[in-house]
Amino acid sequence: MLSQHSRYVPFCHDKQINFPAAMSPPSTAVVYDQQGPPDTVTRLTEIPPVEINENDVCIRMLAAPINPADINRIEGVYPIRPPVPAIGGWEGVGEVHSVGSAVKALTPGDWVIHSAYLPGTWQTYVVEDQSLWYKIDKSTPLEYAATVSVNPLSALRMLEDFVALNPGDTIVQNGATSIVGQCVIQLARVRGIHSVNIIRDKPGSDEVKEKLMKLGADKVFTESELEVKSIKSLLDDIPEPLLGLNCIGGNAATLVVKFLKQGGTMVTYGGMSKKPITISTTYFIFKEISLKGYWLQEKTLDKAAYRCSIDYLLALARAGRLKYEIEMVTFNDFHTALEKAMGKQGSGRKQVLKF
Amino acid sequence: MLSQHSRYVPFCHDKQINFPAAMSPPSTAVVYDQQGPPDTVTRLTEIPPVEINENDVCIRMLAAPINPADINRIEGVYPIRPPVPAIGGWEGVGEVHSVGSAVKALTPGDWVIHSAYLPGTWQTYVVEDQSLWYKIDKSTPLEYAATVSVNPLSALRMLEDFVALNPGDTIVQNGATSIVGQCVIQLARVRGIHSVNIIRDKPGSDEVKEKLMKLGADKVFTESELEVKSIKSLLDDIPEPLLGLNCIGGNAATLVVKFLKQGGTMVTYGGMSKKPITISTTYFIFKEISLKGYWLQEKTLDKAAYRCSIDYLLALARAGRLKYEIEMVTFNDFHTALEKAMGKQGSGRKQVLKF
Repeated sequence: MLSQHSRYVPFCHDKQINFPAAMSPPSTAVVYDQQGPPDTVTRLTEIPPVEINENDVCIRMLAAPINPADINRIEGVYPIRPPVPAIGGWEGVGEVHSVGSAVKALTPGDWVIHSAYLPGTWQTYVVEDQSLWYKIDKSTPLEYAATVSVNPLSALRMLEDFVALNPGDTIVQNGATSIVGQCVIQLARVRGIHSVNIIRDKPGSDEVKEKLMKLGADKVFTESELEVKSIKSLLDDIPEPLLGLNCIGGNAATLVVKFLKQGGTMVTYGGMSKKPITISTTYFIFKEISLKGYWLQEKTLDKAAYRCSIDYLLALARAGRLKYEIEMVTFNDFHTALEKAMGKQGSGRKQVLKF
Repeated sequence: MLSQHSRYVPFCHDKQINFPAAMSPPSTAVVYDQQGPPDTVTRLTEIPPVEINENDVCIRMLAAPINPADINRIEGVYPIRPPVPAIGGWEGVGEVHSVGSAVKALTPGDWVIHSAYLPGTWQTYVVEDQSLWYKIDKSTPLEYAATVSVNPLSALRMLEDFVALNPGDTIVQNGATSIVGQCVIQLARVRGIHSVNIIRDKPGSDEVKEKLMKLGADKVFTESELEVKSIKSLLDDIPEPLLGLNCIGGNAATLVVKFLKQGGTMVTYGGMSKKPITISTTYFIFKEISLKGYWLQEKTLDKAAYRCSIDYLLALARAGRLKYEIEMVTFNDFHTALEKAMGKQGSGRKQVLKF
């Protein structure tokens, strides 16, 4: 390995000298040796220093979230399985610790996020090629820098990539209290787009409604409030939605479709109820409804569009126009945070590891 | 009415003379005065002669089918309801009987089909503006001329308008024994596209399979034959389908989706089982499947594309490359044909009224 990357340097008397390559500090990482229940197969362990080659950047991680997809990947139920043993975590923000000799665009102290959706953000130091890191504004609040590239980016792309929406148009979504849901409300509001939001029936729904209205929601309904003959009469003066977003499935998905305007589109990006989507054939034929899916994948992201989206989202976060609540936990408390993220301690806030 | 269409003709001594307008023969028609069960609300009755204005064409109807949508319209369960009293039938072929003074493109004896999907083909004479009639080749077999503009046109548009298919690609459909289904098989074959076909489990399915294979099907499966672990292993050397067509709903729709390639599209154009479509959220997210609907409507048809499609389909019919079985019945036996079309005498062939 070393010889492959060693550099030939003409030196005194034309002797070849192999300089030792720069090395990263040792890294503390969440490793799993096999797929399975995340709380039993993961362990915190020390990884030996790795070589920093000329195009590499060594990042000291600052913060990384525990996303549902991270859990699914460890469980082995995600469609893409990294080979094991693997380090967990696919999103996060870090500070440049040191750079390879050919790296010009990044210098120590810069903040970067991981742009390529590769695994391994749950560790204290990461070494990867410079092309995989994207420099961001250091005045960004840490929690938004750590979490911008999955949930807020998904919300933005779903609002942009399926239906051409203009100010005054309407979207409808279920799972509105999720971070994606909260981002959808705020991003729609920034563009002058109305949002109709469906939440679960559970204690405290009045406070939830109030919170979502404060974020910019036009309408918030619990599922049971939608058990009416003419769901559209509840829209009052808001136009019928052109776009629906579904992360629940089951009845909550049917409700989204019922709200849609003739020719509207529902995009599914999750299935939290684990129930399928059931839609009458007449919705397809006579209401001309389309159903599509959204999956955030590296391959489908244009690099320039990605950067533009991230910059836009972080600028909104810095301006206080994109907000959501997360819970920062120290990395050493990883297993407590994991239990919370897995819903074993009630449905808490998103867990973000702080290194 | 008469004065509105009368023509000023300079005549001897500059006196104005109103010529009596040309009139159609009286017409025998299937009329319904209210929506309801078609066999009870329809009656054969005589319609008095109507005026043939300068841009009108009077057509002696030759043949017109009884389509399921005709029945639904009379029942009042179709999304578009013509005002009553109304004359039944929305498709058919006729011969030009006489033309208004300004009509140049059509002459008596020409064969025409009704291009605008307006009601009223179940009658012996129809008078409409010349723009609503489309001249066809008189060497076309009557049964195909009478039925080309609904079922074969739908089959063609569904193969053309949703997914870009190339020779060697594959489509999958349920309801393969329907006329649309038979057309799909043959139109796909003409273009070098493979078809995978799903049929119901019922006695005689081996003969049905043989018949569909003769039409050009690559694979024909009954629903029960698809209760296997890996449905795709049944494709053998045929590529996974990019496009699925569904006119059944329920399990038969799920089977179509299971066959689809990553990123494939299922188009729903019917719901014969009266069961909804039920699809797991993971098909939308990770298989990136899209569900759409097809509804043959005048407003969505580009006039040039319509003519081009009809010409193409009728040329195939004349060449014997597009075939399906219908049952011609004399117009006086309308109520027997209607009962057959409503499935009250078993699931027979499509009924086409011959005038």
